[in-house]
Amino acid sequence: MTKAIVLLSGGVDSAVTLAIAKALDHELYALSFDYGQRHAAELACATRIAGKARAIHTIVRISSFGGSALLGSGPVPKGDGECIGIPPTYVPARNTIFLAYALALAEVLNARDIFIGVNAVDYSGYPDCRPEYLAAFSAMANLATKAGIEGHGPGIHAPLIDMSKADIIVCGLECGVDFSMTCSCYDPTTAGACGHCDSCNIRLKGFAAVGMRDPIRYR
Amino acid sequence: MTKAIVLLSGGVDSAVTLAIAKALDHELYALSFDYGQRHAAELACATRIAGKARAIHTIVRISSFGGSALLGSGPVPKGDGECIGIPPTYVPARNTIFLAYALALAEVLNARDIFIGVNAVDYSGYPDCRPEYLAAFSAMANLATKAGIEGHGPGIHAPLIDMSKADIIVCGLECGVDFSMTCSCYDPTTAGACGHCDSCNIRLKGFAAVGMRDPIRYR
Repeated sequence: MTKAIVLLSGGVDSAVTLAIAKALDHELYALSFDYGQRHAAELACATRIAGKARAIHTIVRISSFGGSALLGSGPVPKGDGECIGIPPTYVPARNTIFLAYALALAEVLNARDIFIGVNAVDYSGYPDCRPEYLAAFSAMANLATKAGIEGHGPGIHAPLIDMSKADIIVCGLECGVDFSMTCSCYDPTTAGACGHCDSCNIRLKGFAAVGMRDPIRYR
Repeated sequence: MTKAIVLLSGGVDSAVTLAIAKALDHELYALSFDYGQRHAAELACATRIAGKARAIHTIVRISSFGGSALLGSGPVPKGDGECIGIPPTYVPARNTIFLAYALALAEVLNARDIFIGVNAVDYSGYPDCRPEYLAAFSAMANLATKAGIEGHGPGIHAPLIDMSKADIIVCGLECGVDFSMTCSCYDPTTAGACGHCDSCNIRLKGFAAVGMRDPIRYR
């Protein structure tokens, strides 16, 4: 077994990514971030998902600089309309900060693989979810670290990159993911997910396309 | 005046870099990190240096994953010998994490310039101080952010990249840097810098090459 770092938010995509890394027989190190997000409930989901997968789970508390609806700057947009351009829920440089931490952890643990659950199909239009971004991060990572210059820098894997949300759900079902443990809503309450934010909309459409009822609670 | 983010550790290099950014007439946002380093005294230096330059100063507290003599894993090496390979004071992915935060702050503030005081001459052999690393980070940054894909991603500037420590000190003197406010030692005490670690050695050699007494206190 070789070690793998898996970025785990607690949503559908990262839960399926963790299950894929487990199916590939990696020793799992799940990494989550508490960055002042509105939807802190996802961290509780991440902890449960990591526990079920027997992953060693680290939650890193990081400062953030605001500038996103997910951090309380302005309302979370609701509605079924297509996003035009980059939506206000974009968090500046989020995946770059997350992957930088994953890179540091990989170096310390001598892990050769980093998994991130981004996808470029149903992805809300964030710039740091695109394949060209991930390729550039990977090139940078190979120059940034001791492992990299010794020729064994970590691979950055985004196994969902070309999947639709429906594809991801099907893949997760095949890998035994319990979707009732996941949480995706940008604006959840104790009564459940809102069912109307961009993230809920993409999720609900994905389950509808698969012909399956989403097992989480909506308010 | 346009906004610039300057990574500021409190040492010679970052103090000179801040002075260069000020000489270029930027509105200065200095960014320091509390990452559990042994030499926390440098944060007090950074605060004084930022104050003198009238920079807005942010200290970000970040988790780290260990794996470096600077974080308490093993002794700080002392002596005048040349380093062979990457020394134990290397902190995994440090500059990548620092620059990722700078990128996020640049995006939030709409700043077009990020300054980092790395140099590839007297640099202790760290992989993330090399020009090819910085070029790769810059390429990645232009794909990572909203500003980047809109065509105005921040420039990553390393004005000291080709300078020796002596060159940097001369440049700092021309820019009015007060080197008595800086601190470089990897293992300082209240009695002063050790004078024997890699960082002290490089610093002392630089002042000697310039023919100037280093104004800080050594124990």
